Amino acid sequence: MKINKDYLNLQESYLFADIAARVRKHKEEHLDADIISLGIGDVTKPLSKPVIDALNLAVADMADAKTFKGYAPDRGYEFLRSKIIENDYKKRGIDLDIDEIFVSDGAKSDCGNIQEIFDKDNVVAVPDPVYPVYADTNIMAGRKLVYLPCLKENGFVPEIPKEKVDIIYLCFPNNPTGMVITIDKLQKFVDYAIKNDAVIIYDAAYEAYITDVTIPHSIYECEGAKRVAIELHSFSKNAGFTGLRLGYSVVPKELKCDGVSLNSLWLRRHSTKYNGAPYIVQRAGEAVYSLEGIKETKRQVSEYMENAKAIYEGLSKMGYEVYGGKNAPYIWLKTPDKMSGWDFFDLLLTKAQVVGTPGEGFGKCGAGFFRLTAFASKENTEKALDRISKL
Amino acid sequence: MKINKDYLNLQESYLFADIAARVRKHKEEHLDADIISLGIGDVTKPLSKPVIDALNLAVADMADAKTFKGYAPDRGYEFLRSKIIENDYKKRGIDLDIDEIFVSDGAKSDCGNIQEIFDKDNVVAVPDPVYPVYADTNIMAGRKLVYLPCLKENGFVPEIPKEKVDIIYLCFPNNPTGMVITIDKLQKFVDYAIKNDAVIIYDAAYEAYITDVTIPHSIYECEGAKRVAIELHSFSKNAGFTGLRLGYSVVPKELKCDGVSLNSLWLRRHSTKYNGAPYIVQRAGEAVYSLEGIKETKRQVSEYMENAKAIYEGLSKMGYEVYGGKNAPYIWLKTPDKMSGWDFFDLLLTKAQVVGTPGEGFGKCGAGFFRLTAFASKENTEKALDRISKL
Repeated sequence: MKINKDYLNLQESYLFADIAARVRKHKEEHLDADIISLGIGDVTKPLSKPVIDALNLAVADMADAKTFKGYAPDRGYEFLRSKIIENDYKKRGIDLDIDEIFVSDGAKSDCGNIQEIFDKDNVVAVPDPVYPVYADTNIMAGRKLVYLPCLKENGFVPEIPKEKVDIIYLCFPNNPTGMVITIDKLQKFVDYAIKNDAVIIYDAAYEAYITDVTIPHSIYECEGAKRVAIELHSFSKNAGFTGLRLGYSVVPKELKCDGVSLNSLWLRRHSTKYNGAPYIVQRAGEAVYSLEGIKETKRQVSEYMENAKAIYEGLSKMGYEVYGGKNAPYIWLKTPDKMSGWDFFDLLLTKAQVVGTPGEGFGKCGAGFFRLTAFASKENTEKALDRISKL
Repeated sequence: MKINKDYLNLQESYLFADIAARVRKHKEEHLDADIISLGIGDVTKPLSKPVIDALNLAVADMADAKTFKGYAPDRGYEFLRSKIIENDYKKRGIDLDIDEIFVSDGAKSDCGNIQEIFDKDNVVAVPDPVYPVYADTNIMAGRKLVYLPCLKENGFVPEIPKEKVDIIYLCFPNNPTGMVITIDKLQKFVDYAIKNDAVIIYDAAYEAYITDVTIPHSIYECEGAKRVAIELHSFSKNAGFTGLRLGYSVVPKELKCDGVSLNSLWLRRHSTKYNGAPYIVQRAGEAVYSLEGIKETKRQVSEYMENAKAIYEGLSKMGYEVYGGKNAPYIWLKTPDKMSGWDFFDLLLTKAQVVGTPGEGFGKCGAGFFRLTAFASKENTEKALDRISKL
């Protein structure tokens, strides 16, 4: 047999697996190391009470033949999809059909799998720096990538492509830069896609962190977006589901290519290669939209955003050049003294025992930058800042 | 943009989605219909007490910052993988390394995703009749399929391919026929793969249903299999996890292609496109291997096998030609009067209100056959048999 040789065009390991290995090595060599991770965007707060209550009730359902649930519906349970429609869209004036929502085990899976429904010969544009999954999964499929630079000069928001591209990945609030896009600029991307028969994969995983009321939460706030955009959502960062695994994708029925509905292709993918998120997890997701759940989600998000503020202000005071952190749980900082991101990573790990993510890991335009996350505890965030201040 | 046109080579909908639509239509037209499903292989017994207890404990872990779990390790938690190694392999004299086990959200996902690590230009052999996922996911990737007929004449076990094929899917105990393979015959497939530089994807999802002690539970019982075989396992049918989603794949480190380790390619796929099964579900999986869990699993399996026996013997007495059902939860019957499987499906649905699966849905060689599952309750199984006897 022959292997998929496109895999050999990837860096040997996934960025965060690579970082985890470096941290593990440091720990082995320094058994007493008290490491604080502001690296991978993993949450630390426990699940909220309404979510825990829903899990407990759902587990009880699974213990009784009368309420036991086997295979879930292909697109996910209606009890969850109707809550998504109502809360994430209808309240924002966006009308979606319930069959335009596909529940999954998380935005990472959706990000990784969505490219499958497209031909190999599409030209794919990804931001640079980029969440590695957009780039890696297209490299694995043998596609040609075009990088859209996100620099200090353009406020870390990519320019509209000058050449013709077919698929554009956008992520706002952005991972890794923590920056946002205005509705006007986003509309320009939608207009480009309409004019150029392109599709936009819009990763809205961090929309719950938006504090500025003028910033769009969904690409469907733009005119005509349903004809050209797929949107991805996560329960990981707003409700702390990184270990519970839940997300959803939106593929509008209006989105067609040569008369073929992408919604039907995505359904075929879902029903053939996937068997749904666990019933108990979908019930947990439903609870995120309860009155109490919404309140708890807001509280968790605002607590993480206090960390973001502390990091942003703390580093600014220390003289660092800092971006993001105002509508996103990520702080993007320029490394001091023109250090490379990896050198700064090593410095932080060895001298401050703080783990971050080097900008180079997200692409060429990330060189000389560094990402810190707001997802640690308040105490650890403060301790990390204190250690960095003493460098 | 251009879509993946290989999707257009698929039948419009996934087999079981198609059947569900037919059943839904029947229900809409007959509001009082008391339908019994012996169709899709979905379990009906609630989760066992040790599994429920483990879920409850794990949910409590998620409610406390000190025990909260975020992202899982890429290959799954060691607490689960060590139990798998110990119980499913070491007890059977098979030595595997813990890093050869990859925990997932179920065998369907693994079946669907494993083809990605192989080149498009491999020739893929699948049994006929076939679990649609093996065939459909390779069609979606644009690969050429070779069908290995499973007929009454060969005991529904395929012959060793005469031509050179690169990837061979095997499933024993078989879905849909319920038939098994002897260790001698399986060894011949392994020998073929070694000689022809082929890989075998061995789906062992139903191994818990084997009652005959001479039948292999794992392909690694064959000499040299670690050099050529990937094995897939499910918690769906043994422990009733269809709605909880858990499975695992085994990719031995010895399995290489042109010097490249398939284990490392599969890890790259896992870490890039997937974020692991939920912590609480992995804890539930661990409980399946506790003393109490093993006992409960055996009890559930043997209760389903009583249904299988009842269907096998009941239909035999009615004069049907019946296969399977002795080491598997599936009964494969020849339709009466040379009816097509779909005609028999309609007859059973409209006259007996019983849902089964037409053999045609599994491939050309399934024509004129029909699959019934043992996963209904004892009461419903008996009721269904009674209704069929009155046809």
